[in-house]
Amino acid sequence: MKKFNVAVVGVGAVGVEMLRILKERKFPVGKLKVFARSERDIYVDKDSYHVLKVDHHGFKNIDIALFAGTEGEKGAAVTYASSAIKQGAVVIDNGADFRMEKDVPLVVPEVNPKDIKKHKGIISNPNCSTIQMVVALAPIQKRLGLKRIIVCSYQAASGAGRSAVKELMAQSKAVLDGKTVKPDALPQQIAFNVFPHIGGFQKESYTSEEWKTVKETHKIFHDDKIKVTATCVRVPVATGHSEAVYIETKKAMSVSKLQNLLSKSAGIEVVDDPKNGKYPLPINAEGKDAVYVGRIRKDPFVKNAYWLWVVSDNLRKGAALNAIQIAELLIK
Amino acid sequence: MKKFNVAVVGVGAVGVEMLRILKERKFPVGKLKVFARSERDIYVDKDSYHVLKVDHHGFKNIDIALFAGTEGEKGAAVTYASSAIKQGAVVIDNGADFRMEKDVPLVVPEVNPKDIKKHKGIISNPNCSTIQMVVALAPIQKRLGLKRIIVCSYQAASGAGRSAVKELMAQSKAVLDGKTVKPDALPQQIAFNVFPHIGGFQKESYTSEEWKTVKETHKIFHDDKIKVTATCVRVPVATGHSEAVYIETKKAMSVSKLQNLLSKSAGIEVVDDPKNGKYPLPINAEGKDAVYVGRIRKDPFVKNAYWLWVVSDNLRKGAALNAIQIAELLIK
Repeated sequence: MKKFNVAVVGVGAVGVEMLRILKERKFPVGKLKVFARSERDIYVDKDSYHVLKVDHHGFKNIDIALFAGTEGEKGAAVTYASSAIKQGAVVIDNGADFRMEKDVPLVVPEVNPKDIKKHKGIISNPNCSTIQMVVALAPIQKRLGLKRIIVCSYQAASGAGRSAVKELMAQSKAVLDGKTVKPDALPQQIAFNVFPHIGGFQKESYTSEEWKTVKETHKIFHDDKIKVTATCVRVPVATGHSEAVYIETKKAMSVSKLQNLLSKSAGIEVVDDPKNGKYPLPINAEGKDAVYVGRIRKDPFVKNAYWLWVVSDNLRKGAALNAIQIAELLIK
Repeated sequence: MKKFNVAVVGVGAVGVEMLRILKERKFPVGKLKVFARSERDIYVDKDSYHVLKVDHHGFKNIDIALFAGTEGEKGAAVTYASSAIKQGAVVIDNGADFRMEKDVPLVVPEVNPKDIKKHKGIISNPNCSTIQMVVALAPIQKRLGLKRIIVCSYQAASGAGRSAVKELMAQSKAVLDGKTVKPDALPQQIAFNVFPHIGGFQKESYTSEEWKTVKETHKIFHDDKIKVTATCVRVPVATGHSEAVYIETKKAMSVSKLQNLLSKSAGIEVVDDPKNGKYPLPINAEGKDAVYVGRIRKDPFVKNAYWLWVVSDNLRKGAALNAIQIAELLIK
């Protein structure tokens, strides 16, 4: 079996998950190089990795360079992707910097795998909250057609990186101890609180996270006529994004057929037996690969309108796993 | 000034808040009787109250009987309201049992104060998540007309009573200590988790909480043509419900005019300067009276469609305060 030399750039929450998933899925790795801002040794589970300081010359003989991306600032791909490409690598970037560029495919393997072929050296991984939503909606888009998507998110701290999870835990302990807390990694207190502020505030008073949900969905579905709108909210959960997704479709389908359609679709696990307490939960999604969908129901008052409750591990399907699935497509 | 004899039935989270607010607002209380399942003395802040065991004969000479209601089961009003009325009291019930009855006004004083006049002995207080939403939407309903409401809630543990708050805190501590936890007062783990399950599952796979949002909104606005739909979610917050409310209106208004309209409306405080980190937060709403509204914005793709982020203290405006405002209307 052919092997591929792989670089992972970044060893934050997503980079570490990339190392874990490469191993779990037995990706045919020849030589593995791990890069970050500074040289050091790290442990992931029981495996040690020697991390090199990233520079422009490190990508010689690398076939696939996985950039973990950075929350809230420019990712390393902005600086190093062109060097990696020049040295022969294909870049798969989890950062937000190239996603909307015309020549850069934005790929979710269950949804738009063919887009990968159009790449000119960089393939972008969509935003975490977009990925799980489009996986859940792709079968519906194909069979019924989507007219509108109105989504409210319940996003975990780890979407803002490892420091945000530490802050959630440290703040929670402080609040329980009756101490006052001050936000640092996140814009507001995250312990025992929620806030509608992920990313920066932009046009129309949408956050960057909310715009990503709109624009990335349009690009992945190749349809900018779908009326997408979002409110993105951070909640005190460590890992696992949840979304209440309201859709209007062109054609109708019964709820039971919809459950059946989704349960047979790639990447989706339907958990929808609410009377027995079965619906997706972030604490159950952590560490898992699937996009979990439940609470599938019709709006009794609006034709062809449905609710879905969509939960997935934002570090895995929402980031590292999706990137490695792109790499798997690439080497096929 | 005329004084009124008041009974408070129930000394859970809402009952205690009723005692606190009667005092804070200097309600002209003559004799105060406090009832619960068992006789005991309780302290609220620095005041002690002697609690009597509730029975059918305790409402003699009571003018106003405030029933705190019970989450998830029949409230005491089911058993005792008729006795209280026979003995001459007007019942203001925070429980869900009578809200949809034809002869029972369902009142939010800022929204439909005149409905109070139609009472036949019982006036119902709406559900917490409905109250804050209709306060925020009433000025819009009046000026623009409402066609649709699509709401996702982020509801605090205290909505399920004091035991749920204790569970949130105890579970959070246990998780931080690396222990496994088991839900008891709430249907799922609440620490570092969210779940779309408030109340029981009913018709169309909606929860009772979701149906309340639909039906109570129709009754309060006297308009069952408004297409209301909801996903109600419990989040690990102690007190303060948040709601991402998406609306479609009949007429249009600019965002700045909408901000202005709401900021001049009764019961609302607009907190909407997101670039400076100002938007409503549950931790800031706790213990306050206002319904806080922020993140007011247009859907760029849909005519006459807007988002609001609505936060309020579910024990105060969502329950005890609203009930006492009804009592204030009653004695005017």
